[in-house]
Amino acid sequence: MEIKPYKKEYEYSYCLGAFPTIELIKARPEAALEVLVSPELTDKSTIEPLCRELGIPLRESGKLINKLGDKENVYIVGVFKKFECELSRNDGHIVLVNPGNMGNMGTMIRTAVGFGIKNLAIIRPAADIYNPKTVRASMGAVFRINFEQFESFEDYKNKYAEHHIYPFMLDGATRLDRLKERKSPFSLVFGNEATGLPPEFQHYGTSVFIPQSNEVDSLNITIAAAVAMYNFNIEKL
Amino acid sequence: MEIKPYKKEYEYSYCLGAFPTIELIKARPEAALEVLVSPELTDKSTIEPLCRELGIPLRESGKLINKLGDKENVYIVGVFKKFECELSRNDGHIVLVNPGNMGNMGTMIRTAVGFGIKNLAIIRPAADIYNPKTVRASMGAVFRINFEQFESFEDYKNKYAEHHIYPFMLDGATRLDRLKERKSPFSLVFGNEATGLPPEFQHYGTSVFIPQSNEVDSLNITIAAAVAMYNFNIEKL
Repeated sequence: MEIKPYKKEYEYSYCLGAFPTIELIKARPEAALEVLVSPELTDKSTIEPLCRELGIPLRESGKLINKLGDKENVYIVGVFKKFECELSRNDGHIVLVNPGNMGNMGTMIRTAVGFGIKNLAIIRPAADIYNPKTVRASMGAVFRINFEQFESFEDYKNKYAEHHIYPFMLDGATRLDRLKERKSPFSLVFGNEATGLPPEFQHYGTSVFIPQSNEVDSLNITIAAAVAMYNFNIEKL
Repeated sequence: MEIKPYKKEYEYSYCLGAFPTIELIKARPEAALEVLVSPELTDKSTIEPLCRELGIPLRESGKLINKLGDKENVYIVGVFKKFECELSRNDGHIVLVNPGNMGNMGTMIRTAVGFGIKNLAIIRPAADIYNPKTVRASMGAVFRINFEQFESFEDYKNKYAEHHIYPFMLDGATRLDRLKERKSPFSLVFGNEATGLPPEFQHYGTSVFIPQSNEVDSLNITIAAAVAMYNFNIEKL
């Protein structure tokens, strides 16, 4: 297989750096196609036995790594086949409606895994979860979650009808810190970073807002989502 | 005064874009030296009366804006004299010990103002709070806070001896969600993004950790700080 700089239509993508590559191999070995290492990588004592054990080809190619590495100092690249998986019906979900930014999406995935929430629904149109930039921002946490993409929020809601929906909106009905109960399994729903959730989301489940001073325009989406996830799931950690 | 691309030793800095410039003028008019606008800016109906009212010179200079604008589409630049101010003795503080990254620092300032915490101590060595990158990441929130820089944490602690210290550490003594009380006025203390706080901080006040899954290396510092700030100050909003 010839590896080229990433394009959305490819059936594979890759992650840059040792940490995400090890996450790939450990958490999604069935998706790992190949590991590339730079001739400058002197210490292969972690990556080599790991690849051997799981039967993942390891190839030395400085030229290819330079081409993929986006001018950064990268010594290890993990190539993976794109995958997708059903969400758990019993556990909490994060739902991102039309996320626009790969860095934010990756950061939210890392935070979700950090707070023990490992199921992510993405409503299209959406930033590309497979793009190496998303994978990098997630620090490889994307390999630790189940994720599933939907054409509309209705499609998601119909498939996971048992989930209790909590849309996070600047004009949500209830303050996060005054929510009386947190029903399980929950779906925490966040909108696009520039436009938020459309008004109709106030009619789904219990809409929530995070109190904030009027001295900033609004909290960054990754910050708002982190506070929500902490608040809903911390007791399980 | 001749304005040049920012250097740390200058006595002035600037903010890029309309939103932060308006924040500068509204919140720190005494520090605002000049506003530069691009000839391409067609709508001056907000910025012009604001400058006139407060006696801040407004100058058209496309060339200078291009030079300062870092290749981004910038139409307004606010030039300000560097300022520093004492912290409030009665209100909550954020203390950043050796913050290394300007983007993270700006994001934390924006979050702090969002959650109503408006006093920031910075322990040197530290990223440059005046750098246009920090200002931009803060979305101008840096003009809404009091901040003060210290050569050591001891200096800070001696000056604000009435504050109750809560160092946030991966090996803190108490879980954030099980803290029995939150004493006022509080100091929430965060370390460098790569190294965290040195071990001796466990002996200051009540060290706190934010529970997190062992499936990520650690939460991003801006995320951890946001969760802490929400937790300590949300009732005041």
